[in-house]
Amino acid sequence: MINLKELKDLLMEYAKAQSVSAIVQWDQETYMPDGAGEFRSEQLAWLSALAHEIHTGSRFQHALAKLVDLESGNIIDDKTDPDTKRFLALVWKDYHYASVLPAAFVEEFSRLTSQSQQVWAKARMKNDFNAFRPYLEKIVDLCKKQADYYGWTLTPYDALMGQYEPGMTAETVGNLFSELKDGLIELIEAVRKSPNKPDDRLLKESFDTEKQWMFGLEVVEKMGYNLNFGRQDRSAHPFTTGFHPTDVRITTRVFENDMKSAFFSTVHEAGHALYEQGLPAEFFSTPFGEAASYGIHESQSRMWENMICRSLPFWQYFYPRLKELFPILKETDVINFYRMINVVEPSLIRVEADEVTYSLHIMLRFEIEKMLINDGLNVSELPDLWNEKMKEYLGVVPEDYKMGVMQDVHWSMGAIGYFPSYALGNLYAAQFLNKTVKDHPGFWDTIRAGEFSVLLNWLRNHIHSRGRQLDPLDLVKDVSGEMLSPKPFLHYLKNKYKDIYEL
Amino acid sequence: MINLKELKDLLMEYAKAQSVSAIVQWDQETYMPDGAGEFRSEQLAWLSALAHEIHTGSRFQHALAKLVDLESGNIIDDKTDPDTKRFLALVWKDYHYASVLPAAFVEEFSRLTSQSQQVWAKARMKNDFNAFRPYLEKIVDLCKKQADYYGWTLTPYDALMGQYEPGMTAETVGNLFSELKDGLIELIEAVRKSPNKPDDRLLKESFDTEKQWMFGLEVVEKMGYNLNFGRQDRSAHPFTTGFHPTDVRITTRVFENDMKSAFFSTVHEAGHALYEQGLPAEFFSTPFGEAASYGIHESQSRMWENMICRSLPFWQYFYPRLKELFPILKETDVINFYRMINVVEPSLIRVEADEVTYSLHIMLRFEIEKMLINDGLNVSELPDLWNEKMKEYLGVVPEDYKMGVMQDVHWSMGAIGYFPSYALGNLYAAQFLNKTVKDHPGFWDTIRAGEFSVLLNWLRNHIHSRGRQLDPLDLVKDVSGEMLSPKPFLHYLKNKYKDIYEL
Repeated sequence: MINLKELKDLLMEYAKAQSVSAIVQWDQETYMPDGAGEFRSEQLAWLSALAHEIHTGSRFQHALAKLVDLESGNIIDDKTDPDTKRFLALVWKDYHYASVLPAAFVEEFSRLTSQSQQVWAKARMKNDFNAFRPYLEKIVDLCKKQADYYGWTLTPYDALMGQYEPGMTAETVGNLFSELKDGLIELIEAVRKSPNKPDDRLLKESFDTEKQWMFGLEVVEKMGYNLNFGRQDRSAHPFTTGFHPTDVRITTRVFENDMKSAFFSTVHEAGHALYEQGLPAEFFSTPFGEAASYGIHESQSRMWENMICRSLPFWQYFYPRLKELFPILKETDVINFYRMINVVEPSLIRVEADEVTYSLHIMLRFEIEKMLINDGLNVSELPDLWNEKMKEYLGVVPEDYKMGVMQDVHWSMGAIGYFPSYALGNLYAAQFLNKTVKDHPGFWDTIRAGEFSVLLNWLRNHIHSRGRQLDPLDLVKDVSGEMLSPKPFLHYLKNKYKDIYEL
Repeated sequence: MINLKELKDLLMEYAKAQSVSAIVQWDQETYMPDGAGEFRSEQLAWLSALAHEIHTGSRFQHALAKLVDLESGNIIDDKTDPDTKRFLALVWKDYHYASVLPAAFVEEFSRLTSQSQQVWAKARMKNDFNAFRPYLEKIVDLCKKQADYYGWTLTPYDALMGQYEPGMTAETVGNLFSELKDGLIELIEAVRKSPNKPDDRLLKESFDTEKQWMFGLEVVEKMGYNLNFGRQDRSAHPFTTGFHPTDVRITTRVFENDMKSAFFSTVHEAGHALYEQGLPAEFFSTPFGEAASYGIHESQSRMWENMICRSLPFWQYFYPRLKELFPILKETDVINFYRMINVVEPSLIRVEADEVTYSLHIMLRFEIEKMLINDGLNVSELPDLWNEKMKEYLGVVPEDYKMGVMQDVHWSMGAIGYFPSYALGNLYAAQFLNKTVKDHPGFWDTIRAGEFSVLLNWLRNHIHSRGRQLDPLDLVKDVSGEMLSPKPFLHYLKNKYKDIYEL
């Protein structure tokens, strides 16, 4: 019988340090006075170093080494039961990723990305790729080194992606994306040719921001987001943060002349928040109390945002209430409103893309990142390559760097390998929702009745409560009985947009 | 040349831990979801233990022992300059107070006061002194032990009070209070006999809460509270918290039918906040960057609240704006309004007392605490003694415990020795303001012109920027050239209320 207490106590200490840091970051993004930023950075750096020390210091090493060989990750006692083996494997993996980078490397990486985010923000405003280029070159170099530290089998990019999507390789993602790409381009072409385009100008009229806020909250409460264990605040960029399953918060911003923006960001974040509230509190601080991956997290937000809250049954329930709040919407009906919120339009900016074109933005980034990390692509070649691929994937080409290769913050943060999770989220979501509908044939009637507990309970049982017990690919297989495939997502899209664009 | 770097680094680490804890506590009182309390307690307990370990652990001991003898507090290098001597003496004292209590004692004290606060809250609602009594008995016992651990010369109560008001003894306070008491009782008697009582029913009319909020913020900004380094939020009980001079926050609550409540709590907290914003940032984390004492802190809040914001010149400037926001006030004039906000009325509840009767509430508690700690008074005798003294000091007697001996949270928290600071704040404030007026003969004209920089600059130069360099009694002497005395405060009150009550 192996004793996990010492290790679990240290994991709890680490979780407390991280959760406190998350509170402090939440405050920074919501209520912190403008002038307090300098000292706040010092507080956060201190917390971060403290958490790292708890997670990789001698006490942790000592406790973990009794159970796992620190070098190889092999579990020492062969008779350990499978659950505990999985638990220890995950604990070791996190420890390994956190401790394998030399302190000097971590410091250099941290200093560089902190600087480069500032350089990127300024250079982007001035549309000056060359000012950003030397920083990005260094970041690419360090990311290659990082991959080597982590270790990899097929390509170094796998190691980077593995931070966010465990068990996923560039090869697997490449195959999935290749099939997805063909289907999407075909669908977009059909949409482009359709004479029946929705006219969504009505949504750019004036919508009272307080009422927008209130409506968003009404909906997320209906979805099952428990405000006894959460809250919504304003911030420059919407985000979700969880300190514990009993304290999971979302933020958004509201624009008077763009009613889609606040609403869909609110339900997107609520999708993340439902996942965090549904993680098993009894496993808090351990891997089994954590989300399965960034992509699985994204599957939750995208399923709620796009597949549920942009569906016709959803609005058949909520449209009367929305008209009550915004009488201007009486000018149209629910079918038309549904078409308006589902306009497909190839565009330049990823974060503003619709659910059909979105994945293509991701594929382009995935292709480029692979070339940078695996194939020696030079950063100076990025702008041309970007434009070429935009032309190929989406048929539109940016006129400047700001709307093109410099639009995302990720590379300046050193988060190469992160993008695929966004598109994988769409694939996971479609496969999960398919299974939900299979398990509950009357599923869409429940949505039409404003009743979300069937979906939420399904997600709680099959996804949320299982934490990180399975890697994403295994989770999908286990839950849906099928391997991950782009087919369910493509099927979902074709089916939906056939009606909207009368294809 | 002694090297303070190692010690200062540890003090900075300690300050970061404490400031992070303060952010987390602020969140708990303002925005935390209701259901998040249980885990929040664990986060705070962890932070508190962490801060304690930084402040008293082996690294700190090692660094401090190079400079100060840990047992006696004697500074090792006799040639240390006086500033550094004072600095080290304060660092040692804080270390000594934090480390002299055995861990088992701290744990017992913490568990007991945590329980007893809950017991007190419930027993108070049920008006059940006997349910609270055994807890208070244990608290008194532990406080006596605490005093012995700290060490004392004249009486054990001095050691408890010394936590909040360094250098102050029960004897000194007793002498000050004795003179103050005679003057106050005489003034209250005169007020009681006056036929010219203000009629303040107008202030209980309906006042829009949003406008109340806005007006409070307008005023505190005028006072000099910098919202680039601060903010105001709602909480159940008003408080001020500072994480660093660049992030000092206040809170209040607003009642529609009591316009005095929010406004005067706002300017009271802003008085505290101006002090915290004015502490020297270059000494942050060291004693010279901290407030001189709880009483000196209270002198700042009480001076702004009572001596400035309840003065006639203040309202000669702000009354037009107030009438603009609340046209109902046009029913009266500024003189009458000034009289309404300065009603004197002996009452049962300390926190609702006016500035004349307030100090008597404190004296009564001071007398009782001294008897409990120094003279073996039995807790069971408290209720009768309370009522007796209320009769003697204020001429009113509570009909139940809730409005009497059980009204304050302090004893249930184990904060015996804290109360005197409140009344001392009044005395400090009067002496400081006297000196300000002496230095600036046109002082009240500046207030009448809505110009607060003369006062704020004076406070910045003479009080705020000096941190904890001097103990309160020395600070008063140094700043005003006179020993602390109740005379200036009594003089201020008599002068003010002579007009208001036409005495």
